[in-house]
Amino acid sequence: MPPQTKSGDLAPTVRPFLENELLERVIPFWERHSVDRVHGGYYNCLDRDGSRYAGTKYVWLQGRQAWMFAKLYRTIDPRPAWLEVSRLGIEFLRRHAVRPDGRVYFALTEDGRPVHIQRKVFGECFTAMALAEYGRAAGQPDLVEEAFRAFEQIWIWAFDPVLLGRPLLEGQPPLQPLAVPMILLNLIEELTDGEERLLSRYNREVEQCIASLLRHVDVENRLVREFVLPDGSALDTPEGRLLNPGHAIEAGWFLHHWGARLGRSDLRSVALDMIRWSFDRGWDSQEGGLYYFLDTGGYSPTQLEWFMKLWWPHSEALYALLLAHLETGDSSDLERFERTLDYVRLHLVDPEFPEWFGYLDRSGKPTHRFKGGPYKGCFHVPRALWLCLRALPG
Amino acid sequence: MPPQTKSGDLAPTVRPFLENELLERVIPFWERHSVDRVHGGYYNCLDRDGSRYAGTKYVWLQGRQAWMFAKLYRTIDPRPAWLEVSRLGIEFLRRHAVRPDGRVYFALTEDGRPVHIQRKVFGECFTAMALAEYGRAAGQPDLVEEAFRAFEQIWIWAFDPVLLGRPLLEGQPPLQPLAVPMILLNLIEELTDGEERLLSRYNREVEQCIASLLRHVDVENRLVREFVLPDGSALDTPEGRLLNPGHAIEAGWFLHHWGARLGRSDLRSVALDMIRWSFDRGWDSQEGGLYYFLDTGGYSPTQLEWFMKLWWPHSEALYALLLAHLETGDSSDLERFERTLDYVRLHLVDPEFPEWFGYLDRSGKPTHRFKGGPYKGCFHVPRALWLCLRALPG
Repeated sequence: MPPQTKSGDLAPTVRPFLENELLERVIPFWERHSVDRVHGGYYNCLDRDGSRYAGTKYVWLQGRQAWMFAKLYRTIDPRPAWLEVSRLGIEFLRRHAVRPDGRVYFALTEDGRPVHIQRKVFGECFTAMALAEYGRAAGQPDLVEEAFRAFEQIWIWAFDPVLLGRPLLEGQPPLQPLAVPMILLNLIEELTDGEERLLSRYNREVEQCIASLLRHVDVENRLVREFVLPDGSALDTPEGRLLNPGHAIEAGWFLHHWGARLGRSDLRSVALDMIRWSFDRGWDSQEGGLYYFLDTGGYSPTQLEWFMKLWWPHSEALYALLLAHLETGDSSDLERFERTLDYVRLHLVDPEFPEWFGYLDRSGKPTHRFKGGPYKGCFHVPRALWLCLRALPG
Repeated sequence: MPPQTKSGDLAPTVRPFLENELLERVIPFWERHSVDRVHGGYYNCLDRDGSRYAGTKYVWLQGRQAWMFAKLYRTIDPRPAWLEVSRLGIEFLRRHAVRPDGRVYFALTEDGRPVHIQRKVFGECFTAMALAEYGRAAGQPDLVEEAFRAFEQIWIWAFDPVLLGRPLLEGQPPLQPLAVPMILLNLIEELTDGEERLLSRYNREVEQCIASLLRHVDVENRLVREFVLPDGSALDTPEGRLLNPGHAIEAGWFLHHWGARLGRSDLRSVALDMIRWSFDRGWDSQEGGLYYFLDTGGYSPTQLEWFMKLWWPHSEALYALLLAHLETGDSSDLERFERTLDYVRLHLVDPEFPEWFGYLDRSGKPTHRFKGGPYKGCFHVPRALWLCLRALPG
């Protein structure tokens, strides 16, 4: 039995902050500034105060925001305005982002003409996630079915990037990205929505993703690699040595959810290792905050932005550490959680305008003014706040 | 007549620094640490002290280093060892980097198997530049002819990225990158090597590139845009508002060389504007150094690394400002040159090991330890030092 702890004490102090951020600042920011009631969909490029600096609509963020608003409608408060925001995203996605062959664009003009397509499968994943959530929220099972059908194609594409147009070159090491199994696990969690009937339908895929994800966990060295060879072994190259602590922490809580759902404590235990190892290694002991990238060999990562502190690893850490602490009662998890929360309040929360800053320099000073951009939308911050609120007792 | 100035005074103080950096520190660093006498070609991923952290060979950097060593052999000192270094790169490129259809890979394994190909034309350009220079240095006109033939294909690809596999999407604004005409102008300068006979062969292409480059110069707003519409007009989007001061400064001296060669003072004058405007706008008045990117609208650029100070814009500025000062005798150009040189000596030169740091944070502190990486090789630093030495009187 885990020791009884102060997690009960945590809720009264933390909950007001989380609720205020989610419901009074973050969600109203996106409701007020992002929604495009003319063309549908959401504006993503929003400056510090919410004003628009570009009209481009990024499909990952369209799907994620549509998902978030439907989720809030279903789980927090069935406000018609929230469902309507979600609907605007869903219609825009279905009308403009999804190609007849199921491929999904990466970026669209504000009126929906394609600007860019990636040779990756994530736009497809976030669109399917949104469809399933909105379909349930709006009582439209046809849309949930559409998400299931999209998954069938996603599954084929996800492990075979050649099908997406990436050439397979002779000298390329067959490195497997952590992103694929982790995003698929989260997508299946969303598609199945806790229904046992649906779970059995995806049993094989879940087991394959878990096995694939576990190959990134290097128990001996207590770290989670961003890329591994198909057998899980490491490659002594910048890619093979790459750590992305925020990603590994996020993958940790995805796995933890599956451990809980499948009743497998071994998975929950590995998930806690992933979260703690990645947090401890990723935390900048001198200036605070989680690095974006590290190289396990101690070299400088080749990514220019490796030393920056981004909003999403801290969002992911907040929830993952709370989950860890609530499960184990371990005071070290509580300390990590509180350290992250302090960092968030001091550096990421903008005292003047709602929504968090996205990008900080190593010392924690914002380098970018905007609240929304090509990769930052209505997702990591509100999802983490929402997850924490649901996890907290009382 | 430009006023007579202190440029004569400049040489005795600056030349020793430039010569020492080029011949005692930078070139020996690459000779000692990069040359692969087993497989041919050059290692690019070199840590602060020259030790290797990856074996990957980046084709831009293979071509650029082969070019640099052949150039030094031809213009500074015909050391057989320098020609041999160049030869190792040329053979590696011809054997492994160039595909039968003329396309050139972006990255290779150390033994030459392809790892990555870009849907851009720059690998082809730097390979052709290297072939021409080595062919002349080694007295192999067949290789110079090979470079001319490569150019014929480069010219077709350069302005039609669809041929390189980039999909043309309906919502994509037809933005023209500054990089294409500027790199082609430099390539033609290298291919023709000052020979009048060759110049007339490329007359039409030079004029087209100059016209295309000039469309990026916004005289009214005194700035050089990284992307413009085909008629030279600006687009009010993050791409359309993007400034890359180092790039614009480099394009400035490329154009200046053509102005000098064609005897066109109007081009030399625009070139000086490009250099000065971009330097003045790009310089960080608070912390010193040239920003990597800026947004003309005053927004945060969406590039994460916009605020970083990189080695190459400062290398380019050093030569471009010296050129400007030597042409005009203007003391403001001298001040800009000296300011850049001070910054270089204080922040980019590594007092412990040769070669410059590549990446600094906004305050000028190195963020990355390595001297060579996927985009930093034996090129911008030694080329700038070499160009400055040749430009200095006396």
